[in-house]
Amino acid sequence: MSFSFNSDDFMLKNKTARRLFHNYCETLPIIDYHCHLSPKEIYEDRRYNNLTEVWLGGQTEDGSYVGDHYKWRLMRSNAVPEKYVVGNNAPYKRFLKFAETLELSIGNPMYHWCHLELKKYFGITEPLTTETAPRIWKKTSSMLQNDPDLTVRGIIRKSHVAFVGTTDDPIDNLEWHEKLAAEDLGFMVCPSFRPDKAINIQRPDFTEYMEKLAASVNRSTFTSIEEVMDALSERLDFFISHGCRASDHGLDYIPFNECTIKKANEIFTRAMSGKSLTTDEIEKYQTTILTRLARLYAEKNIVMELHYSCARNVNVRRFVEEGPDTGFDIIAKNTCGRELAAFLSDADLMNKLPKTIIFSLDQSDFNLIGACMGAFQSDEIPSKVQLGAAWWFLDTRDGMEQQMRAFANLGILGNFIGMLTDSRSFLSYARHDYFRRIMCNLIGQWVEDGEYPENEAALKRIVEGISYYNAERYFAI
Amino acid sequence: MSFSFNSDDFMLKNKTARRLFHNYCETLPIIDYHCHLSPKEIYEDRRYNNLTEVWLGGQTEDGSYVGDHYKWRLMRSNAVPEKYVVGNNAPYKRFLKFAETLELSIGNPMYHWCHLELKKYFGITEPLTTETAPRIWKKTSSMLQNDPDLTVRGIIRKSHVAFVGTTDDPIDNLEWHEKLAAEDLGFMVCPSFRPDKAINIQRPDFTEYMEKLAASVNRSTFTSIEEVMDALSERLDFFISHGCRASDHGLDYIPFNECTIKKANEIFTRAMSGKSLTTDEIEKYQTTILTRLARLYAEKNIVMELHYSCARNVNVRRFVEEGPDTGFDIIAKNTCGRELAAFLSDADLMNKLPKTIIFSLDQSDFNLIGACMGAFQSDEIPSKVQLGAAWWFLDTRDGMEQQMRAFANLGILGNFIGMLTDSRSFLSYARHDYFRRIMCNLIGQWVEDGEYPENEAALKRIVEGISYYNAERYFAI
Amino acid sequence: MSFSFNSDDFMLKNKTARRLFHNYCETLPIIDYHCHLSPKEIYEDRRYNNLTEVWLGGQTEDGSYVGDHYKWRLMRSNAVPEKYVVGNNAPYKRFLKFAETLELSIGNPMYHWCHLELKKYFGITEPLTTETAPRIWKKTSSMLQNDPDLTVRGIIRKSHVAFVGTTDDPIDNLEWHEKLAAEDLGFMVCPSFRPDKAINIQRPDFTEYMEKLAASVNRSTFTSIEEVMDALSERLDFFISHGCRASDHGLDYIPFNECTIKKANEIFTRAMSGKSLTTDEIEKYQTTILTRLARLYAEKNIVMELHYSCARNVNVRRFVEEGPDTGFDIIAKNTCGRELAAFLSDADLMNKLPKTIIFSLDQSDFNLIGACMGAFQSDEIPSKVQLGAAWWFLDTRDGMEQQMRAFANLGILGNFIGMLTDSRSFLSYARHDYFRRIMCNLIGQWVEDGEYPENEAALKRIVEGISYYNAERYFAI
Repeated sequence: MSFSFNSDDFMLKNKTARRLFHNYCETLPIIDYHCHLSPKEIYEDRRYNNLTEVWLGGQTEDGSYVGDHYKWRLMRSNAVPEKYVVGNNAPYKRFLKFAETLELSIGNPMYHWCHLELKKYFGITEPLTTETAPRIWKKTSSMLQNDPDLTVRGIIRKSHVAFVGTTDDPIDNLEWHEKLAAEDLGFMVCPSFRPDKAINIQRPDFTEYMEKLAASVNRSTFTSIEEVMDALSERLDFFISHGCRASDHGLDYIPFNECTIKKANEIFTRAMSGKSLTTDEIEKYQTTILTRLARLYAEKNIVMELHYSCARNVNVRRFVEEGPDTGFDIIAKNTCGRELAAFLSDADLMNKLPKTIIFSLDQSDFNLIGACMGAFQSDEIPSKVQLGAAWWFLDTRDGMEQQMRAFANLGILGNFIGMLTDSRSFLSYARHDYFRRIMCNLIGQWVEDGEYPENEAALKRIVEGISYYNAERYFAI
Repeated sequence: MSFSFNSDDFMLKNKTARRLFHNYCETLPIIDYHCHLSPKEIYEDRRYNNLTEVWLGGQTEDGSYVGDHYKWRLMRSNAVPEKYVVGNNAPYKRFLKFAETLELSIGNPMYHWCHLELKKYFGITEPLTTETAPRIWKKTSSMLQNDPDLTVRGIIRKSHVAFVGTTDDPIDNLEWHEKLAAEDLGFMVCPSFRPDKAINIQRPDFTEYMEKLAASVNRSTFTSIEEVMDALSERLDFFISHGCRASDHGLDYIPFNECTIKKANEIFTRAMSGKSLTTDEIEKYQTTILTRLARLYAEKNIVMELHYSCARNVNVRRFVEEGPDTGFDIIAKNTCGRELAAFLSDADLMNKLPKTIIFSLDQSDFNLIGACMGAFQSDEIPSKVQLGAAWWFLDTRDGMEQQMRAFANLGILGNFIGMLTDSRSFLSYARHDYFRRIMCNLIGQWVEDGEYPENEAALKRIVEGISYYNAERYFAI
Repeated sequence: MSFSFNSDDFMLKNKTARRLFHNYCETLPIIDYHCHLSPKEIYEDRRYNNLTEVWLGGQTEDGSYVGDHYKWRLMRSNAVPEKYVVGNNAPYKRFLKFAETLELSIGNPMYHWCHLELKKYFGITEPLTTETAPRIWKKTSSMLQNDPDLTVRGIIRKSHVAFVGTTDDPIDNLEWHEKLAAEDLGFMVCPSFRPDKAINIQRPDFTEYMEKLAASVNRSTFTSIEEVMDALSERLDFFISHGCRASDHGLDYIPFNECTIKKANEIFTRAMSGKSLTTDEIEKYQTTILTRLARLYAEKNIVMELHYSCARNVNVRRFVEEGPDTGFDIIAKNTCGRELAAFLSDADLMNKLPKTIIFSLDQSDFNLIGACMGAFQSDEIPSKVQLGAAWWFLDTRDGMEQQMRAFANLGILGNFIGMLTDSRSFLSYARHDYFRRIMCNLIGQWVEDGEYPENEAALKRIVEGISYYNAERYFAI
C-alpha cells in the first residue's frame, strides 16, 4: 500500500491510526507548555509580509539575529551564502534559496513541517520546489498581508491553541503577559520561570545579572546564596501570580556535587568579587542552587523541566559574529545518569520532589531517563516524573517514535503529557499535528499487530490523554 | 494485514515466523540458566492463593519486600498509593489497582507478559481490564488454590522447564538444592555462584561478610586475598558438586585497574581493619579478585556471567524504607569498553578465559559487546563469548530485537544461547515463549524479505539452537 | 509480499526502490574514496587461484597475516581452529569451514556480501552451504584462474570503478601509484595521506618513524614541531602531485587539549629523547599537530577524514601472535563531542576548516556528528562537513540505515557523498551495490509512505547524487 504525499492521512499508515487520529485527536486543543514565542508579538498581534519573515526571520533592529535556526542550518548545509541565510535583504531570493534547499532535504523533519504549515495555514498542497516557489510566494504573501486569520493571534486561534507557556527570565517584569491577560484572546499565555542566568556562575555576565536580580526585588546586592534564593522565590511568586505553572532549566549536563552551605557561600562570594572558579566549585554552587530550587518548585506546585546534553555556541567564529541561538549548538554526550538520580533523590528525601520532566538531547539517554521515571514516582499525580517529548535535534519522526517506545517500554505511555513546540515560530503549531499523527500511527500499528486489543474506549482515552488531557491535568490548566 | 490480540500467532507477523515457531520452537524445553527463583519454594512446592500473591508479592514475615518490582514500578507510575503497591492488605484491591494500571500501559512488555501468563496458565484470553478484573480474579484464585498444575512445581513442569539455574551466595549451604536433588522433579535445579559480596569491598558489610565466608570454609578470618581466593575456590567446588555450571557478577561498571598482589593485599588489610578506601583502591581490589576468579572459572569450566551498567537503590528515601530490589534501580551509562576488553584479555593471555556472557543495561553497549565477542572467541566451543539476551529494563520487544540484531550483525546468531528469565516470579516462564516468538518473527521476516534463503533445514537448526540446543551445549546440560 | 533470496531485487522491498535502483543507480560508476587496497597488486594485476585466497587470505611471505578480518572473526565465532582461519595450508578445507560458518550467520552482512560477490563476479545464485560448497569451489577456482575479467584489474573494471583512493603513509614513495599512472587502466588510483604515525607520539616506534619521515625530506632529524609540519607539508605536496585528494586519521578519540607551541615543542623534545609522556602531554602534542594539519588541508583543498572510537588490538595474546588488523579490535565509547566541535571550531576560526568527513565506530555518536554538521557548514561546497557512511562494525544493513536516517534528520541527505568500501578485498565492490540498494529502499519507502512526493526528477537527482555525483563533486574527480 502506498500513500500520497501530505494527504489528510499523512503519517497515518494503518487503518487504526487513521481512525484514532481523525476521530479523537485531530481537533483537540493544543497545550504548548514550553516554547520561545514572544508575548510582545502576540500582544501586538504582529502581521508578517511574507514567508521569509515567518520562516527565516533575520537581523533585528538591535543587531541580533532572530529566526528559525533549524532552517538556517539546513540552508548552510546547502552552501547558501550567509547573507541569504540570516541577512534581511532580498527576502524573495532567500525564499528561493530555501525552496531549493528543501527539495534535497528528503527525510528531514523540516520537509514535513513546512508542507504541513503550507497546507494548514495556506491551503497549499503542492510540494514546494524551485518550480512552484514563485506561485507559493505570491499566494502566501498575499494571505499573510491580508487574511485576518494570519496575524499572530489569528494563527494561534486557528491552531486551536488553549495554552501557551513562554520562557522568561526571573527578572522579566511580565508586562506583555499582564497586557495579554487583560485581552479576550481565546487562549492563555503564561510565563515559565527560567533562572539559567542565576545558575551559570561561570559566565562572565554573572555578577551583572546578580545586580539585576537584586534590583528586581529592590535590593542593592546579594551577600549570600540564601538571599539569592529569597529573591528567586519572590520572583517565582510574581510569576505564579501571572499564571506560571512551570520552570525550565538548560544545563550542559546534570551536576550533583554537594557541599555545605558555608562552602557554597564562599564560592558565591569569590564569584561575586570577580574571581574565576574551578569546575568543582562551579558544580558545587550549581548543585546548591538547583537542589534548593527543586524543593521550592515542589512547595509551590511548579513543574520542573530539565533540558540537558547540549553544547552551545561551539562554532566560535560564528558565535562571535551572530550571537547565541543562531544554529551553532550541538548534541553532547554525558554519563550523568547517577547525578540525575542523585538530584531527584535529594529532593525526594525531603518529600519535596516537584513534578519533573526530563529532556536529553542525547537519544541514548532515553532508556536511562525512562528507567529513572519508575524510581521516583509518587501517588500525587500519575507519572509525576516524565521522560520529555523528543527535543530539538531529536524532534523528528524517528526521534519521536524512539522517545515514545522508551516511554512505553519503561513506563505508562497512557500517562505521557505529550508534545510541546519549543519553538520560536508561530506557524510551528503544525508540529503538534505531526506529533499526534506519529503517535496514532505507532499505537495503531501495535493494535493491528495484535499487541494491544481493539478496545476503543481504552484507545480513545490513551490517545486523547497524550494529545491533550494529560497535560491539562499535569499543568492544572 | 492485522492480527487479533494475544492469539496463537501473537508477535508472529509473517508466515515463515509462524511456521518456525509452531513447528520447531513452541514445545521445546526451557533452559532458564539464570533466575532468582527460590529453591526453598520449589522444594516446598508452594501454592498461591491468588494472582496478587504471584504477581505482586509484598512484605514478608521478616519485614522485607519481595515481589515483581517491574509491576511495582508500573503501579507507582500510575499514582497507586504505596500501601497497595507493596503492602499485604487488601489483595483484591491491589489486583484491581494493577488491572487499572495495566490498561494504560500500552506498549509495555508487562502488558504482554501478563496476558501470556493468563493464557498459558489459566486459559484466559480476554484482556485484563477494570471490567474483566473481577471474573479473572475469581477464576485465577480458584485455579491457583486447586489446580494440581498450579503449584510451583506444577507451573515449572507445565512450562516444559528442563533446567533452573538459581542465583546463590558462595556461603549458601545449598540445603534446598540438596533436598531437591533427592526428589523426582522432572527438571533440574542447580545453583549459580554469585560472589558479589566478596567483591564489593566498598560496602559497609564487607568485613562481616568476610567472616561468614571464612566460617563457611572453617577458618576464623582471612589475612590475604590468596586466602579469600582459596575459600572461594573451595566453595565453588562445593557448588559444582551440586551441579553449578555458572557464576554471575553484578557490577556497576567493569573495572580494570591492575596492581601488584602486594598492593592489593595492603588494600584488603586496610578494608578488613575498617578503613575506608579510595575509588582507585576499590577498583584495584576488585580487579585483583575478578581476574583471579575468571581464571578459576576457566579451570573449572564454569560460565562467567557479567551484568553491568546498573545504578542501584538510587532513590534513597525509598531504599531506606523498603530495602534493595524493590524497584529503585536505574540504567547507568559507562564508557568501560576498554576495561571490559582488558579484563577478557588478561584471562585470555594465560589461556584461561572462561565461557563468558556479557550483559549491559545500556542498550548503546550492544554493539560494543558485539564487537568484543569476535575478538575473544576460541575453538573450544562455538561463540564462547556472547552478548547476553536483552536484560531487565531492556527485556522488551524492542530491546530483544535490538540485541538479536547486534548479535547477528557482529557475530553468529545461529550460536546464540538465547533467553533467560532473570526473574523472581514462577509464572515468568511465559517470557521464554515471548522471546521465541520475537526471535522467530525477526528471522522469518529476514527470510520473507529475501535476506536469507528458504532453507528449512538451516532455519530449523538455527531457531531450535537459539531456543534450546545452544544453551544445552554451552552449559553442558 | 515476500522476496526470493539474492534476486535482482535484493534489499529492494518496495516498487519505488526497485525503479530508482534499476533505472538510476545500478550501473553508475563507483568512487571508492577510501580503501586499503594494495596499489602493487593492482599494478601487477594479480590473479587468484581460488576463493580462499580472495576471501580469507592468510600469512604472507614476510610472516604477517593479511586478509579479511571480518571473515576471520566469524570463523573464530564458530570455533574454527586458528590454523584454518589464518593459516595458508588446506585452502579447500578453509573454504569448507567458512561455508559451514556462513550458513549459521543469518542476519550478518557477510552473508549478504558473499552472496552478492558470488552472483556479481561468478554468476552463482545458489546459496553457499556445506552441500553446495564443493561445486562452488570448483566453478570459482576455474574462473579465478582463467577468466580475463577476474584479475585484479578485471574485477575493478567489471565493478565500474572510476576512482580508487588508497591509504598511504606520508613516507611512502608512491612508486606503484606512479607506475599505475603510466598505464591505461580505465580507472584512477590515487593515494590518500594518513599521517597516524606522526601523531601517535605515545607509540614505541615514534622516534624511529620520525627518522624515516625526516629522511623522506632529506633531513637527518627534527628538532621542533615546526620542522615536522614542514616535512608533512612537503610530503603532502608530493602526494597531491600524484592525485591525492584526501587525508585520513585513525584516532582512539578526538583530543582537544591546547597549549603553547613552546610547551608542545618541549613535549616533542622529551618524546624524541625517549622519555615517556603523560596522557595530558600526549593529547597536547596530538592537538598541536592535528590543528595544524587541519589548516594545511584547507589551504591545499584536501579532504580531512576522521575515524574514531576504535580500541585496537585489545586481545593482547592474539595481537602478539598475529599482529595488527587481524580481527582483534573493538568499538570504544567516548564522550568527546565537545572536543570534536572545538577541533573543528579552531580551524574554522581562521577560515581554514577543510572539507571534513567524520566517522565514529560508536553508533550512538551518529546524531552528535549529525548535529555537528549543521554547525560548521559553509558556502564553499554543499555539506562541507559530513557524517561519514556507516563504518566497519557498523557497515551493516541496520548501521547503514541508521546512518542515513541520522544524516537525513540532521542535514541534507541529498548532499551525502555516500559509500566507500574501507576494504582490503578486491571483490568487496559489491558493497557499493549493497549500499545503493539499501539507500534506494529507504528513500523508496519514504516516497511510498507519502513522506516525500513522487517527484521523479528530484528523486533521480538525490539517488544519483548519493551514488556517484556528490562524491565526484566533493573530491573534484
